[in-house]
This record gives sequence, C-alpha cells and structure tokens, in this order.
Amino acid sequence: MTTLLSGLSKVLLMGPGPSMVNEAVYKAMTTPLLGHMDEEFVGLMNAVKEQLRAVCQTANDVTMPMSGTGSSGMEACYVNLVEKGDRVLILQNGVFGVRMADVASRLGAEVDVLEFPWGTPVIPSKVKEKLAAKSYVLVGVVHAETSTGVENPVEEIGRLVRGNGALYLVDSVTGLGGIEVAVDKWGVDAFYSGTQKCLSCPPGLAPLSLSALATDKLKARKTKAPNWYLDISLLTQYWEGQTRIYHHTAPITMNYALHQALALILEEGLPNVFARHRAMHELLVAGLEDLGFTMFVEKPFRLPMLNLVTPPKGVDEAALRRNLRQRHNIELGNGLGPLAGKVIRIGLMGETARKENVERLLAALKTELA
Amino acid sequence: MTTLLSGLSKVLLMGPGPSMVNEAVYKAMTTPLLGHMDEEFVGLMNAVKEQLRAVCQTANDVTMPMSGTGSSGMEACYVNLVEKGDRVLILQNGVFGVRMADVASRLGAEVDVLEFPWGTPVIPSKVKEKLAAKSYVLVGVVHAETSTGVENPVEEIGRLVRGNGALYLVDSVTGLGGIEVAVDKWGVDAFYSGTQKCLSCPPGLAPLSLSALATDKLKARKTKAPNWYLDISLLTQYWEGQTRIYHHTAPITMNYALHQALALILEEGLPNVFARHRAMHELLVAGLEDLGFTMFVEKPFRLPMLNLVTPPKGVDEAALRRNLRQRHNIELGNGLGPLAGKVIRIGLMGETARKENVERLLAALKTELA
Repeated sequence: MTTLLSGLSKVLLMGPGPSMVNEAVYKAMTTPLLGHMDEEFVGLMNAVKEQLRAVCQTANDVTMPMSGTGSSGMEACYVNLVEKGDRVLILQNGVFGVRMADVASRLGAEVDVLEFPWGTPVIPSKVKEKLAAKSYVLVGVVHAETSTGVENPVEEIGRLVRGNGALYLVDSVTGLGGIEVAVDKWGVDAFYSGTQKCLSCPPGLAPLSLSALATDKLKARKTKAPNWYLDISLLTQYWEGQTRIYHHTAPITMNYALHQALALILEEGLPNVFARHRAMHELLVAGLEDLGFTMFVEKPFRLPMLNLVTPPKGVDEAALRRNLRQRHNIELGNGLGPLAGKVIRIGLMGETARKENVERLLAALKTELA
Repeated sequence: MTTLLSGLSKVLLMGPGPSMVNEAVYKAMTTPLLGHMDEEFVGLMNAVKEQLRAVCQTANDVTMPMSGTGSSGMEACYVNLVEKGDRVLILQNGVFGVRMADVASRLGAEVDVLEFPWGTPVIPSKVKEKLAAKSYVLVGVVHAETSTGVENPVEEIGRLVRGNGALYLVDSVTGLGGIEVAVDKWGVDAFYSGTQKCLSCPPGLAPLSLSALATDKLKARKTKAPNWYLDISLLTQYWEGQTRIYHHTAPITMNYALHQALALILEEGLPNVFARHRAMHELLVAGLEDLGFTMFVEKPFRLPMLNLVTPPKGVDEAALRRNLRQRHNIELGNGLGPLAGKVIRIGLMGETARKENVERLLAALKTELA
C-alpha cells in the first residue's frame, strides 16, 4: 500500500516550530526499540536526565521529559502543583499566558491575571505590587512568548517571587536551547519546555524540572492529581531510583531522538549555541529591515529565535507566506489571536538558525517582493 | 559527543510491548518534518484518520490519535466523558481495569468495581445483574487484558450496556491489530488503543474513537474537562474540518510512523493479520507445552498476542527471563501485581508474530532449560 510519505515536500521550517532536525537525530530514530523496562533503556533515561540538567542548568532530581508535546509540560506542572482553591497568579502577555490561565482554571484554581500588552514584556515593578497585595501558591510566566517574540525578565521576576512564598513556574518551550535558561540561578520551581523548538528534535516530549520546594508541594497534596498519565509522583518512580516501577510505556524512539539532539547541543557548547542564535537573528533582522519589514518588538525585548515582523506597506502577509511555502518550500508562521493577519512569525530555532537558511529566506523574500 | 545509541543491543521484543517494528516504519520516521499546520500534513492526518477507521471498524467522525502513549487514551476518554459525581462501573480482571478505577476516581466519579479473578474473563450475566440494580453514566472494560492474557467478551457486554443508557468504554491497547475490533458493531462509545502493541509502531500515540453518543456527552458537560492537553472538544478543531485550529504541536514523526504501520496492516488485510496472530499463538503454545510450560489462561479465553505461562517446576522465572535477555537478546515480560514472580508474559504482537521469532524463542528456551 502506498503511503503519502514519499510525496511530501521537503520544507525549510522557519515558523514557530517544529524546527529543522539534524540528520543525526533522524538517524537516532531508526535505532531498534528496546523495552521500556530494559536496563539499557534505563541507562539511556539516566543519560537524558543528565543532559537535561545540563541544558536547563539545574541540579534538580526531578528532571525528565513528559511523554507528550510541549503543552503536556504545562499541563503536568499545573495539574501536579495546583489544587482546587489555590491562588495562582499568571503574568500574561501572549497566547501561552492565556493558555496557562485556562489550564489553571480548569483545575479549580483561583486565577488572577496580570496583563501586559502583547509585544511588550512583563514589568517587574507591577509584579512586585501584585505580590505585595496578595499571597499566591504559584506564579506562572512564559520566558519566551512564542506568540509575540518577547523575552520576559524571568530572572528579575524570580527574585520577587522567591521572597513571597509562592512557587515560581516558568515556561520556556521556545527559549530552551536558544537563549540562557538557568533554572536554579533564577529560583524556578517548576520548569518545562518542548523538544521541537531550539532543541531541534521532532515534537513528542516535554522536558520538565521541579525544585525541592515543588516536590514538597507534590507530597503535601490533599488529593491525588486529577491526571494519572501526568502524575509526577508516579512518573518519578519510573524515572528515578535503583528499581524502576512501570507506569506507562515511554515513547522510546522520541527519547532516542532527544538524547541525540541534546548531545549535539552540548557538544557545540551552550555559549556557542546561544551566540549562533543571536548572530543569525542579527543577520535576519538586518536583511528584513533592508527589505522594508518592521520588527514588531522593541530591540531590548526581542527573542533571537522567534521574530515577529510587519510586512512592508501593501504586502498581504497571508499571500506572502503562502507564496513562500508554495514557490520556495519555506514555512513561516502566522500571527496568533489579535496579531492574526498583521504579523509574520519567523523562527530561527536550533538547526534552523544557520546562515544558509537565513540567506535562503532573505533571497526568497526579495524575489517575492520584487 | 558520543551517545549511547550505537551501543544498544538489538533485542527481539517478545514482551507485552513495545513490539518489533517493520523497517518501513523506521524509515518513515526519517521523513523530513512538516509543520503541524501545513496543508500536506493535514492531508496526512486525514489519511491516518481513515486508516484508523478501517482498523477499528468504525465510521465515527471523532477518530484520531491522542498525542501520548496508550495510557493517554485511557486518560482522554475518562477526563472528557466523566464528570464529578458521575456513576461509573468498571469491569475489572487485571491491572488495566484497576488503572481505570484509579483514573475515574481522580476525576471525582462514583466508581463501582465488578471484580473477576485475574486470569478469567468478565462474566456477562454478572454484568447484567449489576446493570439491572443501578444505572451508570459509563461502563468501562478492557478488551485484551495485557496483565493476564485474557480476552473479555466485549461484544456480549456491549449488547447489555446498549439497552442501559450508559456509555460503553472499551480499552483495546493490546487487541487492536491482532484480533478483531469492531467499534460500531459492538456498540462501543469510547475506544482507545496504543501504537506499540499489534500496530507495531513505536510508543507515542493513542488511537481513540468516540461515537455520536459520546460526543453528545462532551457537548453536554457542565464544566470544562480538567485537562487542556487532552480536551477532545479542542482537539477535534485541529483534527477535523476545512479550517484547522491550532491546539498543540502534534507529534509529526509519530504520525508518519503510524501512517506507515497502518498501511502495512491494511495491505496485509485484517483477516490475514488476525490469522497470522492466531497461527503464531498456536505454534508458540504447542512449543511451550512441549517444554513443560503451562498456559495460565484457559483455552477459550486466551489472547493470541499475549501469552501468560507458568514455567516448569523448579525453574526461576526471573532468572530465565534474565538469561533470555542477556544470552539470547530476547525480551520477555514479567508478571504484574499478584502474578509477579509466578508467570512470564510472552508477546506475539504485530511484527513480532512471525514464525522465525517464535522458533528463535523456543530454541532459546530449550537451551536454557537443558
């Protein structure tokens, strides 16, 4: 039976993720499966945990991938750490902050939202005021807002939350592996990411890390988490210790892929990886401005790996993206929510952040705008 | 940086899953990623849905994979279809029935459990009595109990549930692709499976199907499901219709793998696939009995793809499994719960159910028992 696979286009992925994947990672996925309780696979799980600790800059025991895509990391943090009636503060300046509020509300949390205009960062002094006025069980923020291209000042916010008694939750689905993430230094208690952005691995896993304070909260829960699949108390029995207890069948192949992708990043070295993202971002911005595009976010707050641009006057952004995809096999991202139809999102994540890709995109844009 | 991947053993997987994977499926995973909103990927999603309808024998609109391993299918069914206070009946004769009760209880359901001894099937007349005595919102049962090797009479139970007003939930994580599954004919309202058993695909997705009655229940919910990641009302907006709405980034590569794995099954033809599982089961049982093993389940209730055996007197099952793995690179499964240390679980799932594999196992067992 013929499948659709051989007929699929080979696309340069320059949207908001998934990003390009190194050949070594594709090859890793052809490694024959082992059983999920096999000692050799347990060895690989241990290696993945160590690699994740290195890229997240943490010594947290509970550091492991959830068996779902990035959003399952968000779900796991909230469903494990928040109980009905808990007061939660969400710092919101984009789609993923909105999603956090939805996730937390579904669990019966009392959610307060501190909003900032999309395209601008969270302002720490406003957070300070909010924290002074009310106490919270958890404060959540998105490090790298994929919907707006803004980097939030998570380290500064962390200093405010630390003195307050709340758990500090940071989403860096888009940041991890592209800009610095320092879970311990920043005082982050609950952290998650996704594999398909700057880690340059296919989507399918959500790296997650919890501090000792967060695991204390797990143990102090009054009720079981209303989610067996993502119950971290059960998952740690599979991911940690001398004797592993079966929970669910882990996505073996995705763990092979993550192991290889993390090895590539650690081999290049985190400072070099971050410098590459920064340099490709600068190359891209210069080229886009030459072509008449306007950057949506003010310079100090721009993420290198996710660039929101307004097209030159008179250019239909949807048509431009469609033409890029159809004529040049390049994927760009659309604007989300209030930004739909107004901006284009250009990703420079992981393997995508290479000079030849930036140049190919700029050349294609030049052709289309000519 | 060297990874552990090249040093991993090549193991014949004859445990309770994951099972062996066809080379074409490994190759499928090297297909370059497309974006999760790309039109070509939407075409592939549509093809996967059609293939799943064929193997599940259903016309259900809502038929799609959840972005997690098999257990996420269980989680998705319960978290979407059961609300706090709903009366749920679980027919329980193994680990996965126990898990269902845990999952449902976490959601605040009033759970009744009708227990049957492990290794024996659910008895429909007992179910009939229970249904006559009390009304339920949902009745859940495991078709192919992976922990005991028993096939439950799901078609017969379905006839009882249909007249009762309850939704009928069937787990066939282990059955799908190895024995008949007829979602529509059996009157199943909520169905899920996993990819890593008889579908012979790496773990990572949970095919799921809901009847119109089940989707009515979704629409009639009083509260949002306490799980954003697995919210089927949102997921269908991504998996169905002319215009797809972004929910989460689907595990692209796993969908490629599933598309290829399902194509292989449909090409062979379901009746041939089932006959192959049956024939390999008979070959295995004859060989095992020759070697002095005893089948744990009575003949009429045995699953072909998951065989529980008691080793010959004086043989330490754990040592035997360890030796099989270390000396012969063959994985067998351990007993779970009350069966730990007493039985061995031998899988014949999907690609594993081939004559050369059965013969290799029997030869290895003969050597070890000599």
